Amino acid sequence: MAADEPKLAHAARRIDFVTDPRRYRHWRLSVDADVATLTLDVDEDGGLFEGYQLKLNSYDLGVDIELADALMRLRFEHPCVKVVVLRSGKNRVFCAGANIRMLAGASHAHKVNFCKFTNETRNAIEDASECSSLPTICVINGTAAGGGYELALAADHIILVDDGSASVALPEVPLLAVLPGTGGLTRVTDKRKVRRDRADVFCTTEEGVKGRRALEWRLVDELAPATRLEELVAERARQFAARSSRPGHADGIALTPLERRITQDAVEYGSLSVELDSVQRLATIRLRAAEAPAPAAVEDMMALGARFWPLRLARELDDAILDIRNNEYETAVVLFKAEGSIENVLAYDAFLEAHQDHWLARETRLLWKRVLKRLDLTSRSLVALIEPGSCFAGTLAEIVLAADRAYMFIGEREGDNRPRARLGLAPCNFGPYPMANGLTRLETRFLGEPAEVERSKASIGELIDAEEAQAQGLVTFALDDIDWDDEIRMFLEERRSFSPDSLSGMEANLRFAGPETMESKIFARLTAWQNWIFQRRNAVGEEGALRRYGTGQKPVFDRRRA
Amino acid sequence: MAADEPKLAHAARRIDFVTDPRRYRHWRLSVDADVATLTLDVDEDGGLFEGYQLKLNSYDLGVDIELADALMRLRFEHPCVKVVVLRSGKNRVFCAGANIRMLAGASHAHKVNFCKFTNETRNAIEDASECSSLPTICVINGTAAGGGYELALAADHIILVDDGSASVALPEVPLLAVLPGTGGLTRVTDKRKVRRDRADVFCTTEEGVKGRRALEWRLVDELAPATRLEELVAERARQFAARSSRPGHADGIALTPLERRITQDAVEYGSLSVELDSVQRLATIRLRAAEAPAPAAVEDMMALGARFWPLRLARELDDAILDIRNNEYETAVVLFKAEGSIENVLAYDAFLEAHQDHWLARETRLLWKRVLKRLDLTSRSLVALIEPGSCFAGTLAEIVLAADRAYMFIGEREGDNRPRARLGLAPCNFGPYPMANGLTRLETRFLGEPAEVERSKASIGELIDAEEAQAQGLVTFALDDIDWDDEIRMFLEERRSFSPDSLSGMEANLRFAGPETMESKIFARLTAWQNWIFQRRNAVGEEGALRRYGTGQKPVFDRRRA
Repeated sequence: MAADEPKLAHAARRIDFVTDPRRYRHWRLSVDADVATLTLDVDEDGGLFEGYQLKLNSYDLGVDIELADALMRLRFEHPCVKVVVLRSGKNRVFCAGANIRMLAGASHAHKVNFCKFTNETRNAIEDASECSSLPTICVINGTAAGGGYELALAADHIILVDDGSASVALPEVPLLAVLPGTGGLTRVTDKRKVRRDRADVFCTTEEGVKGRRALEWRLVDELAPATRLEELVAERARQFAARSSRPGHADGIALTPLERRITQDAVEYGSLSVELDSVQRLATIRLRAAEAPAPAAVEDMMALGARFWPLRLARELDDAILDIRNNEYETAVVLFKAEGSIENVLAYDAFLEAHQDHWLARETRLLWKRVLKRLDLTSRSLVALIEPGSCFAGTLAEIVLAADRAYMFIGEREGDNRPRARLGLAPCNFGPYPMANGLTRLETRFLGEPAEVERSKASIGELIDAEEAQAQGLVTFALDDIDWDDEIRMFLEERRSFSPDSLSGMEANLRFAGPETMESKIFARLTAWQNWIFQRRNAVGEEGALRRYGTGQKPVFDRRRA
Repeated sequence: MAADEPKLAHAARRIDFVTDPRRYRHWRLSVDADVATLTLDVDEDGGLFEGYQLKLNSYDLGVDIELADALMRLRFEHPCVKVVVLRSGKNRVFCAGANIRMLAGASHAHKVNFCKFTNETRNAIEDASECSSLPTICVINGTAAGGGYELALAADHIILVDDGSASVALPEVPLLAVLPGTGGLTRVTDKRKVRRDRADVFCTTEEGVKGRRALEWRLVDELAPATRLEELVAERARQFAARSSRPGHADGIALTPLERRITQDAVEYGSLSVELDSVQRLATIRLRAAEAPAPAAVEDMMALGARFWPLRLARELDDAILDIRNNEYETAVVLFKAEGSIENVLAYDAFLEAHQDHWLARETRLLWKRVLKRLDLTSRSLVALIEPGSCFAGTLAEIVLAADRAYMFIGEREGDNRPRARLGLAPCNFGPYPMANGLTRLETRFLGEPAEVERSKASIGELIDAEEAQAQGLVTFALDDIDWDDEIRMFLEERRSFSPDSLSGMEANLRFAGPETMESKIFARLTAWQNWIFQRRNAVGEEGALRRYGTGQKPVFDRRRA
């Protein structure tokens, strides 16, 4: 962690994204037949960092890491579940949002990455509903303020207790001089389609809105008298569950703990390794192809469970990305390499394609979709090196397409008897892994040459060598043995000489050509403005609103509009 | 101007957006039959502020004010023109982009508003092509770097001299640690649809790209040997002109100087007045309806020329908004009032509707479209007060719909014999004034209730009173005499108590519900990231790249990625 970052609790050295329900301090996950209940009951003393208490069900990144884990487990361990009820374990408080003292004390990089992860987790709630027929009902039993209401906004159906006191609010602007940046503004306008002037009133009313006005303004879907609440929640849960196409009686698989060995300069997982070079400010992620051939039948996949190679690799890659994002701020470039049998990689993709109607195959692909989106949103230069012996094909070829640049090795390397570098496309490169803009990575890449997408599709089944891959526009540069080392070295030197900020801004623009969606708007329009505000003294300065909150002193603002 | 703002040249007290070709110092506008040539030949000593020279055809806001004026004149004074050739008056230099010393010395608010205006001007070039059949051919005879190439990107056709030295470049990231923020990144990916990895290479290559690679990467449309350049430009101009549907032989009208009287606390125009209250941090814009009835025939409109009321009001409103944006940073709220005959306002709209095929009527509406978009992008809280005697109807009703909130007065005011407040819609509220998101303001407003748009359309011809307007969702609050003064006062107090930054971010989100377009992406994704970078010490700190540029000292970067 950097010097201006507060200390992690329990003298931890890194933020760890791995957890499991037995270790949760803030959430309870219970499953009753086809209804799961996720109860937020934050342990005040369980903050991720030292120096604040998580009062009133407020959250920090640690709370959200548990939520993200619970959502994953619902998808893989509990395919029987058909609806999630999201609620609070506290009396008359749903959730007070992100903890303000945590925010006030956090470094800029932590604030930005905290918001990014919480946004990804809210998106995962919506993705479960849209893609896995697993809707969420949110029960607001008291105050849902700021990030608390933003969490509710991710649900399909919001029930607000009509007791004259329970309310929804986005008090960030009047109270803290920041935005409701966890999707709040965008979901109010684009998901719930609240009229803009009402949204203006709502977002500037510190105490929020309750009862009939909340319903009339479409801020919630339903009011419930306190006395009828449980009955109504049960009824809605039954209704939503009845509409779900989830398998119902299928047995889940156990998401066993990740194999992970962390040393000073490396993290070794079962199917990949991360090498950290702090001098070169470089993280190298080596993905390893499955050693075993693809399963013959779905029963074999089920028997493998969390050891099923595509699932294992996706979970490990997700953890590796999150670890770099949140613990290795000075890393400038993430290099991707892939090693092993390209035939095995394609065989697993063919297996997933053939069994796409099986819930576990589908969930595995949906996880890859989310992990690849996480990669798209990672503020590091992403580079794929496609070398002899590599296996970038199908799902792994998406990493090449997600990279800012891809370098491919022409021919053989002296003294290296591994096969020459090849790249392979598969049906999964043409649909199941859309980006946040709604297009596949190939569609985005060839926005100006849509015929190239068709040409690429025709190449399914071929293994494409370097010069051909360059000619087809699939890689940036094809280089031979003579140039390779120098070119890569110069590129890495160049990249780490640039301002990290300008690279973040440039990559955030170049990666997302074409249309925007509600999801991409959250990360572009909303997040970019929030990041700006997180730099402004009106919010984060000594006299700014975030710092002065709770001190009894009013913030002092620079009155100039920019 | 604020204290940390550099001094305006010639001891000017305000940035003035009014100019005319006789006063241009940086551009030459010449018209030869149906071809206009806009030549950029920047006067080094003509900077808007003190302290820098505009070398190598670099620009500041003053240069762009002239360009915006020239574009307006082409549309109104020269309807005979069918194509614009945009070129440089300097040898081997097209344009070096925004002046770096100007940027390094500017306040944050000026940087943001400078970029906003230059973006609006680039959009005006594209709007002329798309809506007025007035395309632009850009001739790059040397270096087109940064904002220089971004200017070229606004053209329909880019010709690059193929002399082994002329080049296009976006060197902002490697050289200055900022973004190509005047649409550059977005137009590279979304207009020219350059493949993202090539865009990455291009945007990190300080010296840029020339010749065949520039063509192959779609950065330019055509190469021209130096010896054949003039011949080719003339040929392309003929071809583009031949495809234009502009009237050709119509006589233009003279855009006579704005009537404008500036005093300490007010600006008085012919059809509107601006009152500045620095204590309340409030600007009140009073729009006045035409006193004369609408013309009977297009000949009358032509005879009125720049005195034609809708045109005069649009020009004056545009100037008023720009003046507040760039000279009154501390203004928190812009209040809109409208006074006079609502019947006259609607009669002018009916006239414009009836004669929409006449070039001057069409250009008048297209100007209103751009002015209204400028309003949407204005970082001030916008409020419409619809009071007795007001005339918010048709085109003026768009201002109500552009406002963050609208308050409407119920019934009559004691001691005021003007007619009660009414609001009127017209066909122009349903098409000709789209926002940057591609939707009308009513479609955006009723994104969640599309049937309301139809209901509104059915009300064309009616004058709607306050309670009905509130019921139809056209205004935020209808208030009677008892509540009006207190409610408005409290609202204004509240608004000026908030952080200006969080209001800017909130409004930028709430105003643009629904789809994004290339245009809106420029102001959201790109501009918001650029504004963030303009706050970061890697760019603007003492050791940052903007400050250190040209000093011989390398910038020192905080290496952390956010």
